[in-house]
Amino acid sequence: MSQSIIPATIFNNIRIVLCQTSHPGNIGSAARAMKTMGLQHLYLVKPDKFPDAHATALSTGAADLLERAIVTETLSEALTDCAFAIGMSARKRYLSHETVGARVAAIEASKIATNQPIAFVFGTEMSGLSNAELDCCQMLAMIPANPEYSSLNLASAVQVMCYELRMAILEGKIDATEANELATNDALEGFYAHLEQTLLHIGYLNPAAPKKLSERLRRIYARARLEKEEVNLLRGVLTLTQEPRKHNKY
Amino acid sequence: MSQSIIPATIFNNIRIVLCQTSHPGNIGSAARAMKTMGLQHLYLVKPDKFPDAHATALSTGAADLLERAIVTETLSEALTDCAFAIGMSARKRYLSHETVGARVAAIEASKIATNQPIAFVFGTEMSGLSNAELDCCQMLAMIPANPEYSSLNLASAVQVMCYELRMAILEGKIDATEANELATNDALEGFYAHLEQTLLHIGYLNPAAPKKLSERLRRIYARARLEKEEVNLLRGVLTLTQEPRKHNKY
Repeated sequence: MSQSIIPATIFNNIRIVLCQTSHPGNIGSAARAMKTMGLQHLYLVKPDKFPDAHATALSTGAADLLERAIVTETLSEALTDCAFAIGMSARKRYLSHETVGARVAAIEASKIATNQPIAFVFGTEMSGLSNAELDCCQMLAMIPANPEYSSLNLASAVQVMCYELRMAILEGKIDATEANELATNDALEGFYAHLEQTLLHIGYLNPAAPKKLSERLRRIYARARLEKEEVNLLRGVLTLTQEPRKHNKY
Repeated sequence: MSQSIIPATIFNNIRIVLCQTSHPGNIGSAARAMKTMGLQHLYLVKPDKFPDAHATALSTGAADLLERAIVTETLSEALTDCAFAIGMSARKRYLSHETVGARVAAIEASKIATNQPIAFVFGTEMSGLSNAELDCCQMLAMIPANPEYSSLNLASAVQVMCYELRMAILEGKIDATEANELATNDALEGFYAHLEQTLLHIGYLNPAAPKKLSERLRRIYARARLEKEEVNLLRGVLTLTQEPRKHNKY
């Protein structure tokens, strides 16, 4: 099926999520950076201070983004309805997470955003994303930086990432995706909860010594980029796994 | 002649010039942005306040760039020895100046920087580069932005431009230039002064009604990207033009 791509749709399907930002000024600067590149949906997970006069002052002409910003308690809430989440990382952290440069991430994400919402997730100023936050992401993106001094300011990182998104969308590198619909974050979380509960049920997961089993399984499925139908299929397997064993019908 | 390219040489041949910056904090943030991308030479033309505690605070780990920053009275001084200067512009200003996107500018500039110093020139926070400053540049670069809100913070613009430079240099898009050596800024200024004085001598330039003649001629030669030898040739013409007319010897 051939599909014409409207850049406005792609821009509208991209959200920027800032996790536990310490300095409200950085929230304002990030909003300004987003708006200069045509992005508008800002999510704030547990910001230290918000709303705040400092944030508004530094947003200059982008105060409208702050007014419409959505504040949540957890990253998972901020990812509601998202089909794909890319975590920003200053360094290669996990071999188990697919890690790409900002330019490639922008192209990959824009393709999915032609028909589903996606998110770029930024961690705190001091320590980036926590492991639990990374486990909510399906891909990691790095901004190539000086190995001797790679500490980009939060708003600068938002600026570069949003610039690459604008370049990817407007330079016509995006083909309408022919792929099937990806599972939303909610569907994935439902599956992970079902999986964990099944592993407890069958006695594979020992709550007293979980050995990061859930995290390792999440990363496998994150890399697989599960489609909506595939989640249903896997959950069917889980449901059957928990049923009392019947005779093998084959 | 085949030439191997050493990225460190290119990085070392690039300077960032900030003209008449009002807020010292922006100087610090710009220094941090430069260092994260591996650039080190900062020039400040008539900064409002420098050195300043605010600049140092916002530079975080890049205070060494501030300590080595060179402060000048004029843009021309900051461009000493430069073979090519690119002015940053938020919009297309002059049809007479070649204007390109940041990505193309990074590639073009890095090619020249394989063997000669070049500069990226940033104007004030409020109004960008003045016409006189633009006339010291051979090319203009624009960061593609939201037409409804294109106001990038100064340090954010520095960040994006330096990021594109790093990408151009490290992604191996740079062929060692086979071109002849470009004239330095000093040689160009010497030529422009000689030209103006010659135009006065022959009575073409009326100091009472200069009609922007010098500016228009500068732009023509800026677009031509004069080589060192070509400046000598043109100055030879000027010298002869001013001599008392002799018999035509041909």
